[in-house]
Amino acid sequence: MKIVEWIAQKRDGGALSDGQISEIVTAYCRGSLPDYQMAALAMAIYFQGMKHDEVVSLTRHMLASGALFDWPGLERPLVDKHSTGGIGDKISIVLAPLLSAAGMAVPMISGRGLGATGGTLDKLESIPGFQVNLSMEQIRRQVDDTGCVIAGASDEIAPADRRLYALRDVTATVPSIPLITASILSKKLAEGLHALVFDVKTGSGAFMKSVDRAATLARSLVTVATELGVPSRALLTDMNQPTGKMVGNANEINEAVDVLQGGGPPDVRALTIELAVAVLTMLPGSNRPDPLALSRQLAGLLDGGAAMERFERMCQAQGANWTGPLPCAQRHAVIASEAGWIESINAEELGWIVIELKGGRTRLGDKLDHSTGIEVLARIGDRIERGQPLAMLICHNDDKGRVEQRLADAFQIGSQVVDVVPLIHAVIGGDNERQGTS
Amino acid sequence: MKIVEWIAQKRDGGALSDGQISEIVTAYCRGSLPDYQMAALAMAIYFQGMKHDEVVSLTRHMLASGALFDWPGLERPLVDKHSTGGIGDKISIVLAPLLSAAGMAVPMISGRGLGATGGTLDKLESIPGFQVNLSMEQIRRQVDDTGCVIAGASDEIAPADRRLYALRDVTATVPSIPLITASILSKKLAEGLHALVFDVKTGSGAFMKSVDRAATLARSLVTVATELGVPSRALLTDMNQPTGKMVGNANEINEAVDVLQGGGPPDVRALTIELAVAVLTMLPGSNRPDPLALSRQLAGLLDGGAAMERFERMCQAQGANWTGPLPCAQRHAVIASEAGWIESINAEELGWIVIELKGGRTRLGDKLDHSTGIEVLARIGDRIERGQPLAMLICHNDDKGRVEQRLADAFQIGSQVVDVVPLIHAVIGGDNERQGTS
Repeated sequence: MKIVEWIAQKRDGGALSDGQISEIVTAYCRGSLPDYQMAALAMAIYFQGMKHDEVVSLTRHMLASGALFDWPGLERPLVDKHSTGGIGDKISIVLAPLLSAAGMAVPMISGRGLGATGGTLDKLESIPGFQVNLSMEQIRRQVDDTGCVIAGASDEIAPADRRLYALRDVTATVPSIPLITASILSKKLAEGLHALVFDVKTGSGAFMKSVDRAATLARSLVTVATELGVPSRALLTDMNQPTGKMVGNANEINEAVDVLQGGGPPDVRALTIELAVAVLTMLPGSNRPDPLALSRQLAGLLDGGAAMERFERMCQAQGANWTGPLPCAQRHAVIASEAGWIESINAEELGWIVIELKGGRTRLGDKLDHSTGIEVLARIGDRIERGQPLAMLICHNDDKGRVEQRLADAFQIGSQVVDVVPLIHAVIGGDNERQGTS
Repeated sequence: MKIVEWIAQKRDGGALSDGQISEIVTAYCRGSLPDYQMAALAMAIYFQGMKHDEVVSLTRHMLASGALFDWPGLERPLVDKHSTGGIGDKISIVLAPLLSAAGMAVPMISGRGLGATGGTLDKLESIPGFQVNLSMEQIRRQVDDTGCVIAGASDEIAPADRRLYALRDVTATVPSIPLITASILSKKLAEGLHALVFDVKTGSGAFMKSVDRAATLARSLVTVATELGVPSRALLTDMNQPTGKMVGNANEINEAVDVLQGGGPPDVRALTIELAVAVLTMLPGSNRPDPLALSRQLAGLLDGGAAMERFERMCQAQGANWTGPLPCAQRHAVIASEAGWIESINAEELGWIVIELKGGRTRLGDKLDHSTGIEVLARIGDRIERGQPLAMLICHNDDKGRVEQRLADAFQIGSQVVDVVPLIHAVIGGDNERQGTS
């Protein structure tokens, strides 16, 4: 293995072969390729990128570094969704039970908060007793029994990714589309899925601030997953304002449950149904159901209580009991100091404010206060009068003073009418690629 | 220290401040900045470069990581030369004694073979007993007593460079002009010099194959050394064919001694005198001696035996005795298979052939056979008849068969008259910058 020549090859813009990538991943897992060479290679990849075949190879070998789920005897199709993360993104909590109610098996491997964004696992832990650390065998059994599970990635899955991700985090090599693609897929593809949908977010609260970069990532995820045998599609969705009204933990769970019971904010309901339609219409062998009929059927599963029933069964299977809305901290209105139209919202800043309220971590191992958060009352394009509340801070009285001005400043109020932003910018992949659906 | 943010800053094309670079070098020496972060940073520097101020800071802090020479009571001016390395480059072995004979003090820190190029220290060890591993105190004393010394860098000098260079070597981050500049100068400037000249080589036997890149390196070296208080100038010299006829170890020493005794190949003599003139005319407070008169005076020091006498004293001070030409292996002619003009010579290949003959290392710690090498008989532009010798292989009879065809193939013979290449492409820095001197 001539790793120095291979780093130089990538540094100079060359492509690495499948054999080279296989040796690199194997040696890195075994510990015979040291972190400093992997760091130099990751930085070279950051600058020079990777061709499609290279990303496929990297994903495949990282996937093969760990265990894969298999599902002997399972008759329901296996589906999942991956979101690139955003502020107030509680879609998974609604979508997994909804897809389960629609007859699917959903072995959803999810994550913790990252940067300014909250994590689905952290939010679920607001429910007293809810266990997210399950073994592969526990996950397999729960999918068999309950139809859906939301849990963390066990140590058995893609150890190459765990090691590489930790290295990228401390070497400023996270924002590389080939490396992001391989990292996401080496975990998701271990689930043994029949179809997969990506929610790639773009805007002020997303990792990808520009639509172009988000579209590049979406296309990379879809083409690589499809090449590796999992029919995939990506929705490019707007993250210039939170998804729904609630940002936090317990308050997001409460809002997700509202949606599971047929209510809740229209954007959360609409995006959940769109993602479900996107993944269900990709299932091989399905009779290509009419998307409109399908979305009506999914709405019925929310409105009629079938999805909520699945959610309650999932809570029970994971050690918790849903007994009604979770308690939250005190609510304090943050009001507009001028009249006008909401021009923009700094969604990332809302995430940082929640972290300031201990609803997220500043360092590994921090214990969360699940009761805090924000309720956003104004959306982009809304007309606001002076003194009208923009948002409610959900926090302990002592913390209010520290963050209320920051929260008010996150809303940009202009003097002109503002166009409403679309919820879905584009659909990438599948046979019905389209743009600008709202 | 937010090293991840600083790596990202460089990755995104930003400049690092003096304070940041100081912390990085200090932490790296202390071991609190791990190799993997330094490797990522080095690769980011490879792609984004560094501004002049950053290179000055990096050089200064790497220099300050180690000990500096001081010269209490020394009245002679301190001068030195650094070459970027080439095939058959034995200039240092002539130049150090010559400058000493001209009244200078020359504390020359030199190196081993690197890639295809031989090392001055390896060549000097052809002389039985010659010691190159000296302490700083031994170097200081020898300069006091003898006027010149050629020795390896002691562990006390620029430890930051030693650690970083070893890391760059295994992470494909060697060919970065800012990092090369800081590496060279962090050692050379520890010598406490009054003037410094660089021999930056370009061509088929040099690290910098293109004149443009060599000129960029030359300008970087000169501007940074000058900013750090050492008047400097660079000669951009041709390395499309070996310097002199001899490539190897003992045979190069014999050729250097020929020049020290007033003979030897004209290019070795001319380049040595040019480099001496370049450094001597930069000395602060000197009466800007006329370069032509100075070069005549230097020629006299070679022809009259004064330089040779200094060489013999240097040998004695370093444990050896010069008793006449060193023994070499058998000579075998390699002849031209066609008539024509020498169009080009693959000088780097000559270096690899010498390594094949054990005149250089393929791995750390290899023991050298100093008796082997090549004598080049044809130079670019020469008219050659079929059957005429191109070069002599100096090797043991058993090894001849393995390399003679490779040696013949290193000479490209064309059917047209070829322009002679200039020895010096340009002079960079100082007050008499010029181009195209031959």
